[in-house]
Amino acid sequence: MSDFNEVSINRAANVYFDGKVVSRTITFKDGSFKTLGVMQAGEYNFGTKEAELMEITAGDCEILLAGASEWQTIKGGESFNVDANSSFDIKAKTIVDYCCTYID
Amino acid sequence: MSDFNEVSINRAANVYFDGKVVSRTITFKDGSFKTLGVMQAGEYNFGTKEAELMEITAGDCEILLAGASEWQTIKGGESFNVDANSSFDIKAKTIVDYCCTYID
Repeated sequence: MSDFNEVSINRAANVYFDGKVVSRTITFKDGSFKTLGVMQAGEYNFGTKEAELMEITAGDCEILLAGASEWQTIKGGESFNVDANSSFDIKAKTIVDYCCTYID
Repeated sequence: MSDFNEVSINRAANVYFDGKVVSRTITFKDGSFKTLGVMQAGEYNFGTKEAELMEITAGDCEILLAGASEWQTIKGGESFNVDANSSFDIKAKTIVDYCCTYID
């Protein structure tokens, strides 16, 4: 059994940061969606529109939420939340495989 | 409407070449599957088990099929076939977004 079933997916990847971050959007029957993505090692800033649950499937990174003063270390199997209309910095120490859930 | 509907997908990416090539496997209701992947610019060799239809969704590359003497230029929107139990070299000139179909 796969992790996500009866989903729709587009052929084309979402490409960010010159391809150093790529993701694909999966849409569920209820219209909700997630992105499954991979970041190459590097440092990135992402803005949010909806609130996000970022689950790190594999890899090591550090994150700094907007307004926070301390970087947090996040490892594969861990996750973090980001507020709507906010942003975060992420330092991917390795390839980072992630699943992002958008929360209305 | 998405390109592929009622498919199953795993949370974890397939990671090759130190993460320079990543893909996710989508499985259809009839049990057939495809991989949707992205290659960073670079040069790679892939072996095949099943025959493959490689559709290049976006990007520019050159390929050399096993036993061939001439490199072929392949652009986004084009595709190529690879025999079962064979291999090919690929030079990704840019980020290459692809869809690979496995043919029994």
